[in-house]
Amino acid sequence: MTTSFHPPQRTLMEPGPSDVNPRILEAMSRPTIGHLDPLFVQMMDEMKGLLQYAFQTQNELTIPVSAPGSAGMETCFVNLVEAGDTVIVCQNGVFGGRMKENVERCGATAIMVEDEWGKACDPAKLEAALKAHPEATTVAFVHAETSTGATTDVKAMCDLAHAHGCLAIVDAVTSLGGTELRVDDWGVDAIYSGTQKCLSCTPGLSPVSFSSAAIERIQNRKTKVQSWFLDLNLVMGYWGKGAKRAYHHTAPINALYALHEALVLLQDERLENAWARHREHHNALKAGLEALGLTFVVPEADRLPQLNAVSIPEGVDDAQVRGMLLNDYNLEIGAGLGVMAGKVWRIGLMGYACRKDNVLKCVSALSEVLGRVGVNVDGKKAMKATLAAYGE
Amino acid sequence: MTTSFHPPQRTLMEPGPSDVNPRILEAMSRPTIGHLDPLFVQMMDEMKGLLQYAFQTQNELTIPVSAPGSAGMETCFVNLVEAGDTVIVCQNGVFGGRMKENVERCGATAIMVEDEWGKACDPAKLEAALKAHPEATTVAFVHAETSTGATTDVKAMCDLAHAHGCLAIVDAVTSLGGTELRVDDWGVDAIYSGTQKCLSCTPGLSPVSFSSAAIERIQNRKTKVQSWFLDLNLVMGYWGKGAKRAYHHTAPINALYALHEALVLLQDERLENAWARHREHHNALKAGLEALGLTFVVPEADRLPQLNAVSIPEGVDDAQVRGMLLNDYNLEIGAGLGVMAGKVWRIGLMGYACRKDNVLKCVSALSEVLGRVGVNVDGKKAMKATLAAYGE
Repeated sequence: MTTSFHPPQRTLMEPGPSDVNPRILEAMSRPTIGHLDPLFVQMMDEMKGLLQYAFQTQNELTIPVSAPGSAGMETCFVNLVEAGDTVIVCQNGVFGGRMKENVERCGATAIMVEDEWGKACDPAKLEAALKAHPEATTVAFVHAETSTGATTDVKAMCDLAHAHGCLAIVDAVTSLGGTELRVDDWGVDAIYSGTQKCLSCTPGLSPVSFSSAAIERIQNRKTKVQSWFLDLNLVMGYWGKGAKRAYHHTAPINALYALHEALVLLQDERLENAWARHREHHNALKAGLEALGLTFVVPEADRLPQLNAVSIPEGVDDAQVRGMLLNDYNLEIGAGLGVMAGKVWRIGLMGYACRKDNVLKCVSALSEVLGRVGVNVDGKKAMKATLAAYGE
Repeated sequence: MTTSFHPPQRTLMEPGPSDVNPRILEAMSRPTIGHLDPLFVQMMDEMKGLLQYAFQTQNELTIPVSAPGSAGMETCFVNLVEAGDTVIVCQNGVFGGRMKENVERCGATAIMVEDEWGKACDPAKLEAALKAHPEATTVAFVHAETSTGATTDVKAMCDLAHAHGCLAIVDAVTSLGGTELRVDDWGVDAIYSGTQKCLSCTPGLSPVSFSSAAIERIQNRKTKVQSWFLDLNLVMGYWGKGAKRAYHHTAPINALYALHEALVLLQDERLENAWARHREHHNALKAGLEALGLTFVVPEADRLPQLNAVSIPEGVDDAQVRGMLLNDYNLEIGAGLGVMAGKVWRIGLMGYACRKDNVLKCVSALSEVLGRVGVNVDGKKAMKATLAAYGE
């Protein structure tokens, strides 16, 4: 017989899920009500306003997709791309590759613009591709590459897309709530994110937002969207304006309670303060990690504060160290993905996980474990450097 | 400023979500851990075993899709159907229509076999369609039509499908955990359900199961599955055997805690007891509703115990009555869907909602409200009939 599952209390400094604020877990366990209950519909309207604030947009179509970030990505592609289209995908990590998969599964052609993993996407390369492919209708790229921790200049990329008559799809899974993101000012047409990163919510939903140009394209498609579940023409009937909502699918009620609470927390902290907090703790963690002799993968100018990818020291067993951190400290840090597997650790500082006690725990635990596996580290120096970054 | 959302405590006698067992809500709020944490992987293995029990199958590929039932439906179609295929869809309510949409969005042809809404699907009609369409590869139908409360003979339909070389896709959204369902004995090839019905869990996940014949077809496709998110070739890498799991998407950790707890509850009650409980309370509710003069839509032989569709009495305002039940009794019952909108109420008796106190509350509240809007009802007689059905 199987019994109830009681997970341990971990510290989640991985690339998501990140530590969930206890207020959010409590909200998630509130009584389930119907997905067409008038009180639930009011909550949905509040949710849209809170998401508009988080994305810094006035876009009417700003909602959470009822599935994880990958489904948010797919929502953008299947709605905006039709068979035969050409889409320029700028890739500088794992998730650009997933965009290519999405484009091709829509029956469209993906023109790949490659940048080195760990670097930002280069707008000059995008411009060259746009000139070479006047038939392109869409540009897609990742704002904050979760696989490397590199950020890309969204406004520069969107401006180029528009100058060549394209719409821009942006992956903001790791950026939303952690670093500056301004959907309207930067001219983003379609954007998707996840709940389990800098919003410190449980995983499972994907906030998305679409500009009026994007909606116009969706409404004027020649063919039906290939996914019934993700067809925004239908989803809008449930998330649309007014008290009357058409049943499309049963919304994940309790997961939405959790996201609502996470967004209230972000609203109360204010976006600019959340961005500054991520920067502050990143600076302290960086000081500690560098004092331990670890080097960052991403050049400083392109580096995300919420995702710290550092090279694994020569001769150190990746899985052994992560296992010790997990088993002895209940601390989870992330492994490398794709070509970076076994070569880097990805240390997340996202949302509720982005706190001073976590930074200190991470630096001290890593210094002890690295010492144990034979790396010559000076733990005292690392703690001193970390505290100095906090002004202590 | 938006503040935290505090939902009221409703009684959910609708077609889903149904009342959630408090043990499940508590499980959902346990600490989030990583989706590749070894303890989480153990929990996933337990989940597969529990789902195999609930579905009565040995199918290795028995997992929850990370999105609601509609995404489970889409998982079955996009994986088993390719462009150019012919699929026979037997429709006797709203959800057969959704199957047609899914088939067509795969670029395949749907041959519709229509039965009256409120009746079971007729195997003889399916047989005629199979003979007329030897090119068909797949048969699809709904075991328990959520829009009407009619059940269909799954084994008879699957036997016919196999006799004509087809695989069978079955919708078990409303049946799983509420009425007899035997995936292996009945020869189902692909099945999907939802968490928010007779499992009394929160909405948002879709348990699915695939036979070895279905997996063989998926592995031998000529084209890629059009959905990256729902591609079982990729999903199997995460939910597959052994300790090594490949990252596909971030699993909805806390929602999975909830489903695990719901399945432990079902295992502890035993399936046969859960089926009997749904039958027992249905009999009592039926006695009460009929004593109030309400008539069932579905003939007795085809009637589901967990979904009671009754005709709205002549001259009664559907929305007004449901509004009174909600506002005065915190009791939610379901409206009609599709052609039945405004004509029927759908009263759910699912999972944790399927209890004696709910049955009594529903009969007494309905009798009071119907009286208030001018229907001539005998409340005392209705309560007496309900209690008599309980042997009191």
